[in-house]
Amino acid sequence: MNHSATYFDHNATTALDSRVLQAMLPFLSKQPGNATSRHSYGRAARQAVDQARAQVAEAVGAHPSQIIFTASGTEANNLAIQGMVESNSQILVSAIEHPAVTRPALTMRQRGNSVASIAVDASGKLIDSSLQNLLSQPTSLVSVMLANNETGVIQNIAEIGEMVRSQGAYLHTDAVQALGKIAVDFSALNVHAMSLSSHKIKGPQGAGALVLDKRVDIRPLLYGGGQEKGLRSGTENVAAIVGFGQACELIKQELSEQALIVTQLRVQLEAGLKKLGATIFGDQSERLPNTSFFAFNEIDGETLVVALDRKGFAVASGSACSSDSTEPSHVLLAMGIARDLARGAIRISLGGKNTATQIEVFLTVLENELLRLKRLSAIAI
Amino acid sequence: MNHSATYFDHNATTALDSRVLQAMLPFLSKQPGNATSRHSYGRAARQAVDQARAQVAEAVGAHPSQIIFTASGTEANNLAIQGMVESNSQILVSAIEHPAVTRPALTMRQRGNSVASIAVDASGKLIDSSLQNLLSQPTSLVSVMLANNETGVIQNIAEIGEMVRSQGAYLHTDAVQALGKIAVDFSALNVHAMSLSSHKIKGPQGAGALVLDKRVDIRPLLYGGGQEKGLRSGTENVAAIVGFGQACELIKQELSEQALIVTQLRVQLEAGLKKLGATIFGDQSERLPNTSFFAFNEIDGETLVVALDRKGFAVASGSACSSDSTEPSHVLLAMGIARDLARGAIRISLGGKNTATQIEVFLTVLENELLRLKRLSAIAI
Repeated sequence: MNHSATYFDHNATTALDSRVLQAMLPFLSKQPGNATSRHSYGRAARQAVDQARAQVAEAVGAHPSQIIFTASGTEANNLAIQGMVESNSQILVSAIEHPAVTRPALTMRQRGNSVASIAVDASGKLIDSSLQNLLSQPTSLVSVMLANNETGVIQNIAEIGEMVRSQGAYLHTDAVQALGKIAVDFSALNVHAMSLSSHKIKGPQGAGALVLDKRVDIRPLLYGGGQEKGLRSGTENVAAIVGFGQACELIKQELSEQALIVTQLRVQLEAGLKKLGATIFGDQSERLPNTSFFAFNEIDGETLVVALDRKGFAVASGSACSSDSTEPSHVLLAMGIARDLARGAIRISLGGKNTATQIEVFLTVLENELLRLKRLSAIAI
Repeated sequence: MNHSATYFDHNATTALDSRVLQAMLPFLSKQPGNATSRHSYGRAARQAVDQARAQVAEAVGAHPSQIIFTASGTEANNLAIQGMVESNSQILVSAIEHPAVTRPALTMRQRGNSVASIAVDASGKLIDSSLQNLLSQPTSLVSVMLANNETGVIQNIAEIGEMVRSQGAYLHTDAVQALGKIAVDFSALNVHAMSLSSHKIKGPQGAGALVLDKRVDIRPLLYGGGQEKGLRSGTENVAAIVGFGQACELIKQELSEQALIVTQLRVQLEAGLKKLGATIFGDQSERLPNTSFFAFNEIDGETLVVALDRKGFAVASGSACSSDSTEPSHVLLAMGIARDLARGAIRISLGGKNTATQIEVFLTVLENELLRLKRLSAIAI
């Protein structure tokens, strides 16, 4: 691994906080129990899972009994979408959802459901009238993400909840990118279900959760030993769940401080980007404090990512979460951004360990790379 | 955690081999990549996942392209059962399958499938004529486990494969308990799909795999970013996958040696058990070398597990994998064992670090506990 590169891709995955690793190590280095076993090892594992459940619940203002542990945010989204939809009903998803919401929704068409897309405006915010119009058809589930993974734009989920509830539908929100970056409160959000992921918040890969209003009737995705009250079978990944719990504990303590750090860094970054002529997407809206999604005219995003990687900067061209990204970002297209500009999109997502010096050096490198790429394309023409 | 207790429950979960933990630690202690990211961190993660894929494939005589990583054996079983079944067809599962096979099969009834159970004989082996009779109905999928988690009895999967293939159905085998204890060869087993789990083989919890014949048409369970060739979306749990790969590497090197150790220990254990009057289930059949499933007349299994736990021995009463185990083992009932005797069942599953002294001490403790429990029940009457 190239440990010298500056990591600017915290929305893709984060490094474990050392305290998270410390919490996990006993479950990796000593004989663990199967949390379903009744002997001392099993009971210790069960206790550790229960403690983590309380930590996750507390971080999002939920009750521990509302937490269903999964192996990923993707699994939580699939559990919500595939599990909560009524047959032969309409599903509404916003036009800017992650594929882990859109694709399970589309697959429900095979089971007789219809799927429609809620429009967003040029600032990346949901258009209320689009949702209102679509809700005139009988709808069982609406899914709108709390914060977008590419632009960082934050939706007014609580208000959306009012509209959705008044039509008797369920509201699910993918809060995977919001957790750890802004305050996330399950009750205040007014949703029936909410997806979380551990590895986006300095916890380990391999843990996620669906926070679920217990009055919701949901079908499991994974059947078997009946873990998680029968809603998610499979031996609990104790170490990962413990790490997820510890990462949630840290959010409670450090969210404001971390948000302040990345906010300042982003101000510095975006001032520099604008000087270089960047368009910053969604910056008219309330955004996650760590995320900047931008493009330069006539510069291809993929090319720039590769060039910056060579210079020691790990940044993303849109979402890292999709393996087929030859198309421009669907988020930008939904916001009405021209395809040519959208093809230039680069995402920087900061973390609390990034520094002002890194931003400074990055901006210099970026300026040089932009000049070089423009020269190259001038020659090519 | 009670680290002084003797661990006799390796079929429930195993401790990480220290070499597995060493292989995982770089991915836990340093900035990891999202394996879908294109920068240096992402490429390092992708490379690690690919190496693990080759290690898992080699351990089971498969090609790396046949490995679909999942988060658990349960997920692999669900992917096979829910993904491979054709609509409105018959599914056959053996009467002794793990709930992670039986329950997803039963849920397919809601999608128009029928499910029938293949009988086993008193020795725990599949009755060929039962399978043959059931195959006279149009069948899309048959699932028979390679080795049973409770008795350790090993099925003739290759022969079963002949029968199933001659009727044009798919054969899936749950090899979760077999891997690491006996040789497992995907091609020789003559199956279309095979489930594996990492934490049963001294790898971490949170990783599993479905080994899949690429000619099989399968539907995903988890939709999203399109990882694992679109068959299993969700950010790869790189550390766990690396650990799973390393654990598979160790199997290749150490299987015979480990099998020899536990075989000798089991001979010692079962000689002692028989002296104490135990019935050992499935011992007429070829079994996993580490597993002993037994009962004493008029002794309740749960009570004995609790008593042995107090004395510092972690054993199981049947499967640890099901949270509702007030019923006697379905495996024993399928073998025609009387309910009263089945209620007494205790499972000891040995590991390579168990010792002859532990067995000796255990047998003494067991003898005393049996006397005590018999005295108690005599008083109760």
